Amino acid sequence: MNRKQLFELIQQKRSFLCVGLDSDLSKIPVHLLQDEDPVFAFNRQIIDATIDYAVAYKPNFAFYESRGMAGLESLRKTMDYLEQFNDQVFTIADAKRGDIGNTSAQYAKAVFDKNTSGYSFDAVTVAPYMGEDSVKPFLDFGGKYAIILALTSNKGSDDFQLFSDAGGKRLFEQVLERTQAWGSSDNIMYVVGATKAEMLGDIRKIVPDHFLLVPGVGAQGGSLTEVAKYGMNSTCGLLVNASRSIIFASNGTDFAEKAKAEAASMQKEMENLLSNAGLLA
Amino acid sequence: MNRKQLFELIQQKRSFLCVGLDSDLSKIPVHLLQDEDPVFAFNRQIIDATIDYAVAYKPNFAFYESRGMAGLESLRKTMDYLEQFNDQVFTIADAKRGDIGNTSAQYAKAVFDKNTSGYSFDAVTVAPYMGEDSVKPFLDFGGKYAIILALTSNKGSDDFQLFSDAGGKRLFEQVLERTQAWGSSDNIMYVVGATKAEMLGDIRKIVPDHFLLVPGVGAQGGSLTEVAKYGMNSTCGLLVNASRSIIFASNGTDFAEKAKAEAASMQKEMENLLSNAGLLA
Repeated sequence: MNRKQLFELIQQKRSFLCVGLDSDLSKIPVHLLQDEDPVFAFNRQIIDATIDYAVAYKPNFAFYESRGMAGLESLRKTMDYLEQFNDQVFTIADAKRGDIGNTSAQYAKAVFDKNTSGYSFDAVTVAPYMGEDSVKPFLDFGGKYAIILALTSNKGSDDFQLFSDAGGKRLFEQVLERTQAWGSSDNIMYVVGATKAEMLGDIRKIVPDHFLLVPGVGAQGGSLTEVAKYGMNSTCGLLVNASRSIIFASNGTDFAEKAKAEAASMQKEMENLLSNAGLLA
Repeated sequence: MNRKQLFELIQQKRSFLCVGLDSDLSKIPVHLLQDEDPVFAFNRQIIDATIDYAVAYKPNFAFYESRGMAGLESLRKTMDYLEQFNDQVFTIADAKRGDIGNTSAQYAKAVFDKNTSGYSFDAVTVAPYMGEDSVKPFLDFGGKYAIILALTSNKGSDDFQLFSDAGGKRLFEQVLERTQAWGSSDNIMYVVGATKAEMLGDIRKIVPDHFLLVPGVGAQGGSLTEVAKYGMNSTCGLLVNASRSIIFASNGTDFAEKAKAEAASMQKEMENLLSNAGLLA
């Protein structure tokens, strides 16, 4: 899915919502534990309930890898299930990968090359610490995106991302400046946390065109209005992720219904923001 | 395995060699392709051939994940096979993980918690970009290590790791300084590439006691003598990794024999270096 198609999908669904499938086995409703694969049963119902309101789904690999082979089976079934929606969803492997060049090429296959790994995600999150050769292999797949960590939403983001040089340039700005030369807004996006919404203005000066994946709205406390105010561009340029606030909106038998209501509420807010920005036909 | 036990193992085997199991299916000897699980068959023979000369094994997850479930089965069998050697090997999950706190806690389970994931590695490589809460969950497991990326061996390491502040402090030095306050030399190690051996002297001023995992000897061109000169401390403090130069020493039916010869040669060199430093009883 290229950038133009992603924007069309956003216009069609009137939403730039990404649902984070951080499907922690210990947090899903207990009645699902009788299912053969409780996490897949959970994900399937979450997807069915939110598909009209979300343009993207983002399983975080940690929640699947922590359960070993059983967890990886749940992830596999979830992605197979999402295939039926084909060009109606953008899929993100939230895996924060990155290694030396020949190794990153293997990680790229692990998420992009259906022939070898069975997966064909549209995008993968990438940690930039190891530099150019660690990112490049992800950019060599046509029609796929590396979503590079820039300024994250967590407390620890201050530790190194704000480390600054003699001219006051911070590491996350160095990451934005340098990495954009390695590809284009057609194969690179950036992670920018909603908890730093006011810094989105500075970020947009460096990367006006790129899509930003914005976590931190919802459970982490970021504001959607602020994110749109500082971060929206002429093709929307935002995928705002919510995980726990949607998928764990209820831990009862009504979890899918409550997830749907929460996703619908965010979609409505996003529709207003898109409309106010003149981005809906 | 604590730091004292690791040093005892190094003294006993007269080696600080780590064998990197970057077992790329496209590079293993063709005669193995008839095996039900060629990569496990390859790893098993490599382990048998090198176990007397190596103190550590380090599968790089990318080479397994790229093959999907089949690759993860190969990794699983390899780690199950290594269990028989128990306290005779230190095992490293080379996975370069790191995410926000609650998610890193899941990644820690994925490599350390046998009850949930089936894996009980001694250590995991961790990318520091996301800061303290992304690293801490790995340090909360007793007797396990986070091996934090500091100065890596690849070309791209220059892009961000050498980014420096007004006082000339470089990012990798900031990482070393800040992260060591989050744990101790009993649960943190650092990745420092052999291709930057001359910088090991500067690094030892910041982290005199920590073990360093040193990739880049062998195929990447680093010198073992230089690494020992600048990096060895009173408990050795080094795990030097070689991957391709050992495991792909031959691609014929003699691959295990050639891997053994290569590992034995490195062990001999390491024994001399340990002896010269007065570290063998």
